[in-house]
Amino acid sequence: MEEIRDETGTQRLVGYVVEVGHADGFARCWLDVDERHLNRHNVLHGGIATILLDNASGTAGSLTVDAAGLTPFLTISMTTQYLASGKRGRVTAIGKVTGGGRSTKFISAELRHEDGTLIATSSGVYKRVPQEKLK
Amino acid sequence: MEEIRDETGTQRLVGYVVEVGHADGFARCWLDVDERHLNRHNVLHGGIATILLDNASGTAGSLTVDAAGLTPFLTISMTTQYLASGKRGRVTAIGKVTGGGRSTKFISAELRHEDGTLIATSSGVYKRVPQEKLK
Amino acid sequence: MEEIRDETGTQRLVGYVVEVGHADGFARCWLDVDERHLNRHNVLHGGIATILLDNASGTAGSLTVDAAGLTPFLTISMTTQYLASGKRGRVTAIGKVTGGGRSTKFISAELRHEDGTLIATSSGVYKRVPQEKLK
Amino acid sequence: MEEIRDETGTQRLVGYVVEVGHADGFARCWLDVDERHLNRHNVLHGGIATILLDNASGTAGSLTVDAAGLTPFLTISMTTQYLASGKRGRVTAIGKVTGGGRSTKFISAELRHEDGTLIATSSGVYKRVPQEKLK
Repeated sequence: MEEIRDETGTQRLVGYVVEVGHADGFARCWLDVDERHLNRHNVLHGGIATILLDNASGTAGSLTVDAAGLTPFLTISMTTQYLASGKRGRVTAIGKVTGGGRSTKFISAELRHEDGTLIATSSGVYKRVPQEKLK
Repeated sequence: MEEIRDETGTQRLVGYVVEVGHADGFARCWLDVDERHLNRHNVLHGGIATILLDNASGTAGSLTVDAAGLTPFLTISMTTQYLASGKRGRVTAIGKVTGGGRSTKFISAELRHEDGTLIATSSGVYKRVPQEKLK
Repeated sequence: MEEIRDETGTQRLVGYVVEVGHADGFARCWLDVDERHLNRHNVLHGGIATILLDNASGTAGSLTVDAAGLTPFLTISMTTQYLASGKRGRVTAIGKVTGGGRSTKFISAELRHEDGTLIATSSGVYKRVPQEKLK
Repeated sequence: MEEIRDETGTQRLVGYVVEVGHADGFARCWLDVDERHLNRHNVLHGGIATILLDNASGTAGSLTVDAAGLTPFLTISMTTQYLASGKRGRVTAIGKVTGGGRSTKFISAELRHEDGTLIATSSGVYKRVPQEKLK
């Protein structure tokens, strides 16, 4: 299992960790929720939840191309459902590719608290960044 | 016009500013995008974009109840479409209530760069937090 | 297992069948796709796919209240992802409640062709129709 | 202004009419709602509403390529918000392209009753069908 930490500005700001190489093949993105991630209701901010779901999903897309999970995928569209409040403690998003072709992927993700509570789910359309754009 | 700054942990972390009291009645949430808000592609992280759209939307809901925009609304479900890359500079989300009843509101938002580029749009279902839960 | 047929105008028009009472507890809505359900590409019209997903989802909501699956639930918001073309033959949507409280439910559904192909998935917010509105 | 009628199996079944060539450049899809289009609540079935929004959106995509609105676009993902009940009478969906590139388009639509009521809104991702697939 490999951890990806501090790769981008947003990752350093928010503090989440991306994991690839799990036996089940699924990408993960986790965060130890503290006071910096809370909203007006003193629970996990929905936008932070979306960041975790989005990163797990994008990494799931990358894993269809390379085992290191580093091939960039862009989020085209994403729907998030907020099922329960996210409390302090570790929350983990797991992303799974549900369909799609070579460049466009449908990817779903679930975000759970370490106590098992399902906090949020998402489904999105992701697109592999064309190679010529990466040069 | 009133600015809401540093109200929550997430707001202090990310650095966005909420504005209420504009003549047009619409809620705004803006951010001066710098290196801390960028993703692997060196553009605005989609999750940060969602935070801004979500805050503008939730505040738009609050404004239907009180002019200070402080009545809490929960995000039930939210769809974001990522139309263009968000660059460094000021980006502003504007939220508008499109329908709904007393407690459930349909709210849309647009996020634009200061150069006019439409970066992302969202539509969501928001729910007023029951008063008994606020005590 | 109970079949619900010809209950509404839309059901009679389109010809789908709703099933409740399966051992797994999940609601189903199936349709034998023929020429009347095809789009410009000669595959299942996305809107017909959505009707099936929506009915399976609404019925899944009803089953949380009564075993006959007849308690009405309204669709508040629904996102559908179109993964693969739907061909002629039987297609079946299965709906599952993923969360929510007493009146608002989060419900997901999958639509598959009888050959196993996953055609479309959906996630939505549903609301139980208040009793006073039913009189 | 040109009307497209009875083009596909679904269109003949449901009875909607597509309009292109309006001065404002926007695609329309309307339906005279009668008993065949109603749900358990005796209002417009959400799935029928989605069909209208989807057709107006797909046609809006086609209009970016040809003035006849016939170039096929596939729906990749679509979110619909159900704001108000749709009653009998004429309901019209208007679709507008909000962004995207050459092949992928972001398209929004609104469905209104002839009395002006906003019944539903949608936002979706559409993709132009590759020419080689059309042969």
